[in-house]
Order: sequence, then C-alpha cells, then structure tokens
Amino acid sequence: MASQLDLIGKDYIAGISNNPRAASRVTSVYSEVQASRIDHALPLPSVFKNPFKIIDGPLSSSAGHPEEIEKLFPNLYGQPSALLVPNQSDAVKSDQKLKIGVVLSGGQAPGGHNVICGIFDYLQEYVKGSSLFGFRGGPAGIMKGKYIELTSEFVYPYRNQGGFDMICSGRDKIETPEQFRQAEETVTKMDLDGLVVIGGDDSNTNACLLAEHFRGKNMKTRVIGCPKTIDGDLKSKEVPTSFGFDTACKIYSEMIGNVMIDARSTGKYYHFVRLMGRAASHITLECALQTHPNITIIGEEVFEKKLTLKNVTDNIVDVICKRAENGYNYGVVLVPEGLIDFIPEVQELISELNEVLAEGNVDEEGQWKKNLKEETLKIFEFLPQTIQEQLMLERDPHGNVQVAKIETEKMLIQMVETELDKKKKAGTYKREFMGKSHFFGYEGRCGLPTNFDATYCYALGYGAGSLLQSGKTGLISSVGNLAAPVEEWTVGGTALTSLMDVERRHGKFKPVIKKAMVELEGAPFKKFASQREEWALKNRYISPGPIQFKGPGSDARNHTLMLELGAQA
Amino acid sequence: MASQLDLIGKDYIAGISNNPRAASRVTSVYSEVQASRIDHALPLPSVFKNPFKIIDGPLSSSAGHPEEIEKLFPNLYGQPSALLVPNQSDAVKSDQKLKIGVVLSGGQAPGGHNVICGIFDYLQEYVKGSSLFGFRGGPAGIMKGKYIELTSEFVYPYRNQGGFDMICSGRDKIETPEQFRQAEETVTKMDLDGLVVIGGDDSNTNACLLAEHFRGKNMKTRVIGCPKTIDGDLKSKEVPTSFGFDTACKIYSEMIGNVMIDARSTGKYYHFVRLMGRAASHITLECALQTHPNITIIGEEVFEKKLTLKNVTDNIVDVICKRAENGYNYGVVLVPEGLIDFIPEVQELISELNEVLAEGNVDEEGQWKKNLKEETLKIFEFLPQTIQEQLMLERDPHGNVQVAKIETEKMLIQMVETELDKKKKAGTYKREFMGKSHFFGYEGRCGLPTNFDATYCYALGYGAGSLLQSGKTGLISSVGNLAAPVEEWTVGGTALTSLMDVERRHGKFKPVIKKAMVELEGAPFKKFASQREEWALKNRYISPGPIQFKGPGSDARNHTLMLELGAQA
Repeated sequence: MASQLDLIGKDYIAGISNNPRAASRVTSVYSEVQASRIDHALPLPSVFKNPFKIIDGPLSSSAGHPEEIEKLFPNLYGQPSALLVPNQSDAVKSDQKLKIGVVLSGGQAPGGHNVICGIFDYLQEYVKGSSLFGFRGGPAGIMKGKYIELTSEFVYPYRNQGGFDMICSGRDKIETPEQFRQAEETVTKMDLDGLVVIGGDDSNTNACLLAEHFRGKNMKTRVIGCPKTIDGDLKSKEVPTSFGFDTACKIYSEMIGNVMIDARSTGKYYHFVRLMGRAASHITLECALQTHPNITIIGEEVFEKKLTLKNVTDNIVDVICKRAENGYNYGVVLVPEGLIDFIPEVQELISELNEVLAEGNVDEEGQWKKNLKEETLKIFEFLPQTIQEQLMLERDPHGNVQVAKIETEKMLIQMVETELDKKKKAGTYKREFMGKSHFFGYEGRCGLPTNFDATYCYALGYGAGSLLQSGKTGLISSVGNLAAPVEEWTVGGTALTSLMDVERRHGKFKPVIKKAMVELEGAPFKKFASQREEWALKNRYISPGPIQFKGPGSDARNHTLMLELGAQA
Repeated sequence: MASQLDLIGKDYIAGISNNPRAASRVTSVYSEVQASRIDHALPLPSVFKNPFKIIDGPLSSSAGHPEEIEKLFPNLYGQPSALLVPNQSDAVKSDQKLKIGVVLSGGQAPGGHNVICGIFDYLQEYVKGSSLFGFRGGPAGIMKGKYIELTSEFVYPYRNQGGFDMICSGRDKIETPEQFRQAEETVTKMDLDGLVVIGGDDSNTNACLLAEHFRGKNMKTRVIGCPKTIDGDLKSKEVPTSFGFDTACKIYSEMIGNVMIDARSTGKYYHFVRLMGRAASHITLECALQTHPNITIIGEEVFEKKLTLKNVTDNIVDVICKRAENGYNYGVVLVPEGLIDFIPEVQELISELNEVLAEGNVDEEGQWKKNLKEETLKIFEFLPQTIQEQLMLERDPHGNVQVAKIETEKMLIQMVETELDKKKKAGTYKREFMGKSHFFGYEGRCGLPTNFDATYCYALGYGAGSLLQSGKTGLISSVGNLAAPVEEWTVGGTALTSLMDVERRHGKFKPVIKKAMVELEGAPFKKFASQREEWALKNRYISPGPIQFKGPGSDARNHTLMLELGAQA
C-alpha cells in the first residue's frame, strides 16, 4: 500500500523522454481514487492459473463475400478460431524470448492501459526475458519507427487508469504500399515477433491486412487485434463486447440519472441529451436501459422504419402532450449523436445542398433555394433557422456541409418548440415547454475503467500474449462467457477474416469489418421496446449514481452485454 | 439489508396522493447504488449521543448597517448565537409534542433530503409523538397551505438520495403583506410550533423576515434556516459551508478530470468548461483545486483587477502560445458561468444595448450602432458575430438582452480563435487551435450526496430540530469544526440578522444576506494563485474519478472547506 500512497498529490515520472510532449504525458499527479486503483488486484480467468494449451476450432468463413475475402487474404482466409484450454502435458511454453510491439489506434476508450499491462504481465509470467515496445501516437508510430520500451516501472502508474496517455493513440492508417513498406521496415529492424493492435473496426481490419502482408512475405512478425471502442459497434458472436463501452455508458448514465432527478425535482424542464456514437446507437440504448428516460431515439429504428425528421419530432411532441395531460411538464430525451445519418431525407438534403451551395450563388433573397427539389426544399424549410444557417454557412474546406457540427439535440428542441407553439395556438397544449440541451461525449472516453472493463481488458491482454506466444496471427483476442464469474471466462482468438465483408470503393473491393448495429430483433432493443411506453408516460427514472469500485454496484455489468448473453443485468 | 434489496429495480411507492404530479414524484425505481445508500448509517456529532443543553454566545450585530437591521428586525436583532453542549442536569427535554413544518426553497442541492430526515429523526428520538409536515413545491406550499405529513415510511426511500423530489422546491418568495398573511394563516391553522426553511441567501433572508413577523405577532411558530446552495456563496465564520457544494464540485471535477485525460491522450483539443455559479466563482475555484487545469478564470479576480474581455482573451491566448512553444497543443480552461457579470465594460455594453435596441430601429446596414458610445461599440465589435447576433436578436419579454443565454465558453473559444488567427498570420503561433465547449451544471445539482454532504445535512437537520425544541427562532442551523472527525463537529445556531446588511431598493432599505464571494486574500484563492503558473505551462492534471461511497477517497472533504478551516484537504 505504501506504493499507492506515495503517489497521491505527487508527481510521478514514469520513464524518461527528451520529447517534451511525450514527457508531459508521463508526468502525473494522482487523486486518492486514482492512486487506490493502481494497486487494485485483477482477477484472471482460471485458464491462466494452470498450464494450458491452445486448441483450434472449426475452419472459418467470412461475414460476406467469402471468395473476395479469400482473394484479399490468401494466407489467412479460413483460419480456425483458437481457444485456451487447461492442459498439463502439451502446455504452451517457449524458452525463446519474444519481442512484442503494441499500438493504440483511434479514439480513447477506458481500459486501453490494462490491455497493455495484460500483455506485459503475460510476458513476465510466461516468457521471461521478453520485451514489450509501445508505438507512440498510434499507427504513425509504427510507420515512423517511434516507440519506447515498456518496463515494469513505466507501465505501473497506468494500471487501471483511464486515457491512452501511456503511449497515446492516433488516427493514421497503414494503407498505401509505401506505408506497408515502412511498417515492414520498422518491425524488421526491431526484430518483432508480434504486434498487438488495439483498435476499432477499421484498425482491426488494418491489423489483418498487416498480418496478411507479413505472412505473405514469410516474416516472423505476427499480428493480433483487440476490440476497442466505447461505441460498442465492434462485436460478434465470439467477441461479445468491445472494451470501454461499459465504462462510458456508466459515466453517461450517471449524468443522465442526475439530470432525471433534477427534472423530477424541478418539474419544468425537458432535458435533451445527445450521446456519443455516430454510427450505431448502442450507447444510447444502453443508457436508456440503465436510466429509463421518457423518450429514446434509436438511429437504427429511425432508419428501418424510414422515419422523417417530422415523424421524429411528432413522436416527441406526442409524448410531451400526453405527459402534460397527466400533469407532467418535464422529461428526459436521449438522442444518438448520429441521428441525422439515419434519416434518408436528411442525407438527400445534405447531398443536394453540397451541390447547390458548391456553385456558390447563395443570394440574400433565397432565390438559390429554387435549385433544390421540391421535397428537399420542404425538409430544408422544416429545419430551424439556426440550423439552416449552419448548413448554408459552415462548410468544410471541400465546400461540404458540416453535418457533424450540427447539435442534433438543439435542433430537436427547436423543432419541438415550433410544433408545440402551433398546438398552443390550437389550444391542444397548454403548458410552457422549456428544453435544456446536453452533450455527453468526451467525459466518457477517458474515465477510470469500471471493474468490468479493467478486468476484461487485462484478460484481453493476457489472451493476446498467449496467442502470440503460440505463433497465431490474424486473430482478434476474444474473451467470452462474460456473464459468468471471471474465473469461468473463456480466452481465445477469432479469425479477423471471419468478421469481414467487402465494400466496393473506387471500383475495387475493400475488406471491412462491418459495424455491429443495434438489432431491432436483439434482446436489448426488445427489452427497451417492451418498456418504453411505460417509461414515456409514467416515470420510471433510475439514477445509477457514480461508478463504484468497492461495495454495492461495483461489479455490475452493462445491460446490453448481459441481455445479449441471455442473462439478466 | 432485505429492505434495500427489495427496492432495486422495483417501484417503491411512498405515500399516497391523488395529485398525479405529486404521485409521480414518490414513485421510484432504484439502482443498486441508490438502494445501497438508503440504509447507509450516518454518524452524528457526539453532542447528540448524550443529554445536552443549549448555551448562548455573545450578543450579535449585523454584517453592515446595524441600525437599519435593528429597525427591520426589532424583535430579533442582536440575538446571541446558540451552541449545544453536553449537559446532564439541565438537558433540553420537553414532554410537549411539536408540530414542525419544513420547506425546500430555490434550486436543488445534494443533501436536502437528509436535512429533512435529520429533523424527522431528531423529533422521533427527542420529542416522541411530534409531527413533521413537508410543504410542497417551495414557499408557495406555505402560502397555499399545500403540505403532506412526513411519516417514517414516506421519508425512508429518500434517505441519502439526491434531488428535492420528496416534497419538491420552488422559487416563490413570501414578500407582500398579503403573502405574509397567507403564511400566517397556514401556520396558525396547522398549529405549527416551528418551521425549517432550507434555502440559499434569499430564502434565509425570507426565513428571518418570517421569524420576525411571527415573533412580532406573538405567534408560537418559530423559524430556523438551513444553508443550502451548490454555489457555496452562503457561508460565514459560523456557517463554514452550504450543503451541496461538496457533491456538486466533486461531480464536476470527475468530468473535468476525465476531459483532462482525454486532452492529454488526444493532444489536440482545448476544452473550455463552463461551470455553474452565476454570482460567485467558488465552484470554479474548487474544481480548479481538485483538478489543476491549465487556465482558470475567477470572476472576482476579473472584477477586482478590472479586466476587460480583451484582457481575459489575451491571457488565454498567451498561455496557449507558451504551451505551443513547449510542445503542448492541448489544454483545459475553466470558466465560471457568471463571468460576463464581472466585466464592467460588458455590463455597460448590455445596458446601452438594452436602451438602443428598445427603440427598435435595428437596420441591416448597422446604422443603429452609431447610437452606441465609441468605447461600447469597440467592445461590441470585439465580440464574435454569433454573440453579436444573439445580443441583438434574443431579448426577453421586457426587451432586455438575455445575458444568461450567452454560452460564455463558446464566446471565449471564438475570441481566442480570432486572436490566434492573427498570430498565425504574423507567424507567432504555428499550431491548429481546436476548442471544445462543455457546460457542467444540471448534472451536479441532483447527484447522490457524498458521504460528507449526507452527514453534514443530517447534522444540520438534527441541529434545526434541537433549536426548535428549545424555542429558538431567527437562527440558521450551524454545524462547525468540520475539518475534525464527525464526532467532534459542533452544533448550534447563528442569528440570521448577524449575516445581514441592507441594500437600497426603490428608495427603501431591504435586508439581504450578502453572498460570500471568492476572497482574493482567502486561503483557497491564494493556494490556487500560488500554483496556477505551474499548472498553466506544465501539466499537473488530477483526475479525481467518480465519487466513492466506500473505500479510498470516500470521506474526502473539499479543498475550499479544508483550506478555509486552516486544514489541508
């Protein structure tokens, strides 16, 4: 315990670097809670408590277009999945020391440091004398050969800590032949036996391309992926969840729960909460299951039901009016960040605007609007004026409308306000509507990982280490049976090619790991759908409170995971 | 424990009401953490463990204009403070059952429910057979005679819970002679022996006026105040802090800490965080002490140093440029919600705009601007265009500019951007500036109270009960010695008139409890000032993590409180 107390309120300098930016990142001062987490002991799946071997599952295919995937990955396609099983006689062991590299790719997610610590500790325990190198600043670090050796002292202060600041991340991709060559050069120079890529769907696709490239050249460097993204949209049957989702959703749900109690106490505000998750609405759905808001918009449902912006607005207005009749003039509405991307008519509007506005002739009198199709114009005019102006004025360097900059929750508040004003004039709504907007995003990406994420990530790291030790490549570290106690979790690897399909881009097939969207037939959505009417009109708010590391609630797993595994959260 | 587990995920209906709005408020579903808090046992100051009596301190004066305060409170002025001391022989006791009313006034603050539970439990323990009534919806409940009897079963599910939803709050004031008559009628009809007013500076002033009114009419109803506000601006020597401040600041600091780790991990964003607290900057200062941001703006300092908006902007730009030279292109800036109110030139601009725009002649060509003074016009033109438009277009029903609607953090981002663009053209700044805005407000008002707030509030409630039992009126419940273990906390009451001064309004003296502002000579600001340069240029971020109810960090008290008490946080 002395070790953690030493850190509180003091600078802890891990490693030495002459790069001022890097140096700053490894200088930290710790709060009492942060410090207490550093020495938090993590349980491991029982397979790591005794000798084990790795067995192969059945041969795999792909998520789609197997013949194209096979062409793209001739050396890897069809690989079986791998599973660790207890075994005394043929146990995995090697006297050969390993050199392993690790890279963080893409946006932050709580738990990333623990994956690295898991790999590190695995090597310490099973392949003594091995070295682990962290590439700095994401895949660019591989291409530029920027890395640091991770020592016990260096990784220590990052144990169970949020953020990616140990080695930082980046959004570069290894794509061009030249970039592949650079990567090849780096790993050859470093004499790497393996590389662990911690990232989302794109990064894991990239990991598989690297694995294929290295294997095709008979290089010894193997590549293993790890499922990271708070958005929760990288998962499959064998990869039950991506890390970070649990923590991020619990942080957002804490805030939503607080805002709900505020709404109920004040009795006069409608809080519109936009949540991160541009592609899929898993975060919004999970937060809804945790907190029971009055209205929750799920992008995938909007898309599937072909709802228009007017439909979405009317649905909200309808609930507000019904609640007013029941005496409730307050509520909470959850909105996924990516809502607009799910509404076909808005997509149409944006692409027409991109064309029309590119021509540049936007006149004050609005004559330019005549260049829009009639239907499109209607949608444009349905939008609040501030949003119209935003669409017209704020364009990116390519002249494109900046959809990502639209604050969807504010847009909805204004549209709801307009519709309610009409109803007020018609005498069908008699209350005052006051909307308050919130965006919960960055707050959730770098929180201290929950006990679940901390443990899950550590196991992912251990798993990645074991896969590399036994010579596997092109797999994603997979830890399963997550509804059970940690001891019973399974550990293995899933062929990355089995998660892939192809997309046609610029006339060529590109491999992609398809994002896992919210399934309207899936258990989480069905549970939500079966209860949302009650949540809408009655008040069933739940306030999950702050994430706890000890005591009640500290070992809870998220609803989405438990429901998808057929268990109760 | 059975009792709390029964609540998890189930509806708990406390009390019965035919009012649908009220009924909704007492129907709750509990999360595991919420449920675990209900039965959390609260320690009490040791004076409540044995018989005690109440002794008087020296006679009091007022915070200013004693002769005017004496005129306004002829029956109460000069009252001594009261202190509970252990005493076996003359211990406070009464066989007479008491009827007590309690009201929540103004904005939510974590811990309000515990004050009520404290009063309730005090009566149960010391004056068996007494009744406690909760006025609904704030002071309006007193005027309209809307109340509910608080039973053991009714208060139970609110123990240690956030929000004010047990009886709800309101912002009405009891001001006119007619309103005083209504209040008098209600408490007389109810035969109340006492009334506890839980509120901020205004509400406690109001409580004192009621106490004076009732005493002047020889009524038996006594009035005791309780210090509530997350803003932390209701405090004095004898009232070391207002409840809710501790929890709110810790919730905001959790989010700020997360955003900091994100900034450091990403290495490319400047996060501008606006924090609640319109009048005083205590919240911003406390959050700074908890998290060590690169830049913190304290309204009181801006005012004292007569800084202009340009000065504030330049200070930020200066730090950003210096950090860029050191290789850091990211950071975190804390901004108090009330910043604009502290800048005299902006106040001047707004009052001129109110006049000029009231005349209505805003022309497209901007000729109207000629009606502004030259200096004022300069300030107007320094503002970003969106803010200019907001000031011109969005006015309240009285035609006044809506200052409260200005998103100060976004305004600063835009002004900083403009200045950095100039520097870029001049070649003195070479990086890309990307600002991200946040507002942390509603999330903090209704969180689960920290162990400190839960315990402090419970003691305030016990104290209020004891003061009423011994016939005190016009006092504010005061719990002191808060840096010591709970057992050693002192309990008593402070004359509300001693906190008052007068303000001249419409030619009359009005009593006011002066808001406690951040003192530039006070220990919290001095500690901040002594460290901020280091925080600005180096990175000393601390991430406090989520509020813990058990284990490390769960009993921490906030820095402001500890520093003001001369202790280390």
